[in-house]
Amino acid sequence: MHTIKELQDIFTEHLAKQDFFSDPKELYEPIVYSMNMGGKRLRPVCLLAACELFGGDYRKALDPAVGIEMFHNFTLVHDDIMDNAHLRRGKETVYKKWDTNIGILSGDTMFAIAFDYIMRIDDDLMRKAVLLFDKTAIEVCEGQQFDLNYETMPSVTIPDYLNMIRLKTGVLVAASLKMGAIIAQAEEAQADAIYNFGLYTGLVFQLVDDLLDVFSRDHKFGKAHGGDIVCNKKTYLYLKGYELAGEEEKQALDHLFSDKTIEPEEKVQAVAAIWEKLGVPDVARNEIRQYHRKAVDYLDALNVPKKYTGELRRFADELLGRTY
Amino acid sequence: MHTIKELQDIFTEHLAKQDFFSDPKELYEPIVYSMNMGGKRLRPVCLLAACELFGGDYRKALDPAVGIEMFHNFTLVHDDIMDNAHLRRGKETVYKKWDTNIGILSGDTMFAIAFDYIMRIDDDLMRKAVLLFDKTAIEVCEGQQFDLNYETMPSVTIPDYLNMIRLKTGVLVAASLKMGAIIAQAEEAQADAIYNFGLYTGLVFQLVDDLLDVFSRDHKFGKAHGGDIVCNKKTYLYLKGYELAGEEEKQALDHLFSDKTIEPEEKVQAVAAIWEKLGVPDVARNEIRQYHRKAVDYLDALNVPKKYTGELRRFADELLGRTY
Repeated sequence: MHTIKELQDIFTEHLAKQDFFSDPKELYEPIVYSMNMGGKRLRPVCLLAACELFGGDYRKALDPAVGIEMFHNFTLVHDDIMDNAHLRRGKETVYKKWDTNIGILSGDTMFAIAFDYIMRIDDDLMRKAVLLFDKTAIEVCEGQQFDLNYETMPSVTIPDYLNMIRLKTGVLVAASLKMGAIIAQAEEAQADAIYNFGLYTGLVFQLVDDLLDVFSRDHKFGKAHGGDIVCNKKTYLYLKGYELAGEEEKQALDHLFSDKTIEPEEKVQAVAAIWEKLGVPDVARNEIRQYHRKAVDYLDALNVPKKYTGELRRFADELLGRTY
Repeated sequence: MHTIKELQDIFTEHLAKQDFFSDPKELYEPIVYSMNMGGKRLRPVCLLAACELFGGDYRKALDPAVGIEMFHNFTLVHDDIMDNAHLRRGKETVYKKWDTNIGILSGDTMFAIAFDYIMRIDDDLMRKAVLLFDKTAIEVCEGQQFDLNYETMPSVTIPDYLNMIRLKTGVLVAASLKMGAIIAQAEEAQADAIYNFGLYTGLVFQLVDDLLDVFSRDHKFGKAHGGDIVCNKKTYLYLKGYELAGEEEKQALDHLFSDKTIEPEEKVQAVAAIWEKLGVPDVARNEIRQYHRKAVDYLDALNVPKKYTGELRRFADELLGRTY
């Protein structure tokens, strides 16, 4: 079995060998650009790791892993249009560099190319793999719609929010792992267990992101410190803050989130101070630990030698570790 | 074998039984709306007709036919955003009725749902059918990109234009027919022949549309008379007009297509008069007849009893007949 780091290198090398360019160049240049933007390649690496975990040959999983990464990047290209995001990983987003029409159409093409790569597996696995992928794609769209809805909805509950990040982030990590299990011909129950590991790991990933946006010790994650607070994003912290707030803190938060004359830096510090006082970061860390526990329980229950699960365990631990 | 009219009714009935609605409603209401907009259901009916032509059971083709129609409607939803089109079949377009974000995301979901329906076939046909569908989806995106490019490109050739409408319109009609052949387990060569019939029929369909926009005897096709001329669309007629024009007509056309003070009605009449004088409609009709001939040749060469091809022959003849 390879380490996560080795699989990252293997995947990067395989991806570099793909030639996504074709005619018309207006359609394909943005695809090449998007796929070359980098990133952690979290999902394809999960796919390869799960394949090896269940005794499969990672080489059979390389093309489907490209498909998963292509799909993920397609969602980023379209999401950036919907969110008016100008930058991604420090570079101009596709629709900003070109235009909205090209963003829409290149994205559509990436979705179709993703299917092509997913299908590069044995005949007897085709239906299972493509159905899983397609169902996941629909769920990711649903998650993005809930996310858009919540921007303007006055009352979002924490279960609403958790369901949204499950759909928007969790299911694709989960499906990537299950795809690896399918390619390794793992038993159904085992494939479902690794799916659930991925689902909870995805939740950990997103909740840690929420937390680090405000309470990180450094800025190495490339985001503006407190960016979620600046744009009033209804994250776990935001919702939990209101839940725990007394009348006085509630009024203070309302004021901070509505008065547009407050300087961003000041707003972030003031909101963070109230949340800290209410114990929001500790509640969040506790919630994250519980999801991490659930993820690891699914991993421990797998019917594979313990030493094989070490890499995925370390992977989950590292996500958790970022919060301390 | 059923007639085209009967297959239209069968498909409409099957479509009405589908429940596309789900949660969140912001995502699914536009999908239901788009699928209920009506239209000729040309592509799914082609799929059913080809299935019966090769001795298949049309009931096995009903769900893939829904998938094809869902895909076609997805392209319309996204194209309407790119083309700033406010109306479609006399109703508000999705992005106008809701907003651009919902248009993008509902469209993406429709593409994924389309795959789900296409996959509702026997295991041994899965790869062939899904690969055909996916390849076609990519080509349709390429066609739309060429179409967008041509809006601002100064010199578009007639072969460029024909290639664009092949991709944007031809391949989906062709793939619908071939999908029917695949479901009926037709031989490869037969499936390819019906694909080519569809390709040329699709070209006839689009070229007839171009012609009728300007030279129709009546307005029953729901388009403003000369709408393509009003917005300087580089159709077959536009390109052929410049090809056949002498210096004098070229200057007159340049003036008509660039002077924004000319009233639309006046512009349409003047351009149409020049084209008529140059013999453009006759050249177009001749081109259409040649494509119709090629389509019919593919149909005649099929290894099925002549009486079976009658319905598709009548279908192609009717498209051609609209020009006289």
